[in-house]
Amino acid sequence: MGEKRPLIFISNDDGYQAKGINELIKYIGDMGELVVMAPNRSRSGKSSAITANHPVRYGLVEQSDNVKIYWCDGTPVDCVKLAKTTVLERKPDLLIAGINHGDNAGINAIYSGTIGAVMEGCLNGIPSIGYSVDNHSADAEFGHCSDAIRRIAQKVLDKGLPDGVCLNVNFPAEGELKGIKVCRQSSGVWENEWVKQTHPRGYDYYWLTGEFVEKEPDNKESDRWAFRNGYAAVTPITVDFTAYDMIDKIKSWNL
Amino acid sequence: MGEKRPLIFISNDDGYQAKGINELIKYIGDMGELVVMAPNRSRSGKSSAITANHPVRYGLVEQSDNVKIYWCDGTPVDCVKLAKTTVLERKPDLLIAGINHGDNAGINAIYSGTIGAVMEGCLNGIPSIGYSVDNHSADAEFGHCSDAIRRIAQKVLDKGLPDGVCLNVNFPAEGELKGIKVCRQSSGVWENEWVKQTHPRGYDYYWLTGEFVEKEPDNKESDRWAFRNGYAAVTPITVDFTAYDMIDKIKSWNL
Repeated sequence: MGEKRPLIFISNDDGYQAKGINELIKYIGDMGELVVMAPNRSRSGKSSAITANHPVRYGLVEQSDNVKIYWCDGTPVDCVKLAKTTVLERKPDLLIAGINHGDNAGINAIYSGTIGAVMEGCLNGIPSIGYSVDNHSADAEFGHCSDAIRRIAQKVLDKGLPDGVCLNVNFPAEGELKGIKVCRQSSGVWENEWVKQTHPRGYDYYWLTGEFVEKEPDNKESDRWAFRNGYAAVTPITVDFTAYDMIDKIKSWNL
Repeated sequence: MGEKRPLIFISNDDGYQAKGINELIKYIGDMGELVVMAPNRSRSGKSSAITANHPVRYGLVEQSDNVKIYWCDGTPVDCVKLAKTTVLERKPDLLIAGINHGDNAGINAIYSGTIGAVMEGCLNGIPSIGYSVDNHSADAEFGHCSDAIRRIAQKVLDKGLPDGVCLNVNFPAEGELKGIKVCRQSSGVWENEWVKQTHPRGYDYYWLTGEFVEKEPDNKESDRWAFRNGYAAVTPITVDFTAYDMIDKIKSWNL
């Protein structure tokens, strides 16, 4: 008997029925043994939220020789944590979250449940990658990303990732990729975020929408520039939020 | 007329009725004009989650000459975003989240709704601070932190913070502070996170609990060491998750 095939754990924030996660399973199905645990409904924008105040459940959706798919009624991070305790018989060799419907580049990474799952894998010592496509539609196209998805996943399986570092990969909405570009997280801000509407009973409520304003649209080192210009944008991100270059500065404040 | 008093925006993840936020209002009430918008129930562990799939409401709880308090039925990040659109007439000079019941040091910062609010303030260009005490009890003590809370807040009002940097401050549960120590985020991992119970109807469900295992308990540069040893731990954190030291390394993979 040869060595075991890689164990690849998969999750997302769009839910196990989303097209993106099911395309991902097709693209990488021959790269290892797959275990999927993903939310049973959309959990977009859940960041690294955990479910602290009520219990969480999971169940089997379907299984074949090579793929087991589970639903979970918690957040993406709950999926990673619960799978570790319940359905994973060993530590995965790789975690992949996505393919997300909609980009998670720039500060969108902060809000993303997909990136939450990636960071949770990373915190548990699993080499972890998030894949996202710049198209929010339920029927977004993913085929143009398949080669790069396999290539990046195989490279991470071969090389690993350092402790505390994971990858946030963002693809253009369509078209042949110009290449794979290693980037940094771009900055920006959401504006005009709320639309007020009035309930028939007379009270106001607010829907979160908004427009993303890039602070550095022409910066070719940024992840947003890369995917807007036809590249797969690979941004290494860290779960260590420390602003190291500020430590000495704040020490000089003599608090 | 002199210049306007500083406008200080306050939120948390324990809810507007929590002791911690109400103590905070007492401690800093003379430092500026206060506007509070906080969740109407516990939103612990909500990280930077936003409410994407249903609408959000807010309302006035109470107001005096100097303090206006609003509830919001969204997440801590929703509170910051919604207040910006609705109840804040100008950009705050300072955002404070807390005082959190329970520490947000180390990787707990990643899951914390309190730190989510702080990072959201930072993303909007507001100098932002999160305060947390190492005691989850509803009746935790906060008085031993009041001088340091004022001192750090005043320093940030005076000095500002660079774009993209905010402060995560963690206090011991009790006792006179030994001082204020500038730190970095410590690493660790949650283990044994789920307790399985069985519903009367026969299905299993899981409560998230767990034990935090520190990876570097004796590292005196870490935030956890600092508050466990009687100091206020001030950790500068960044909303730029890029792992800069990995960019060249990953470029060398020739993806």
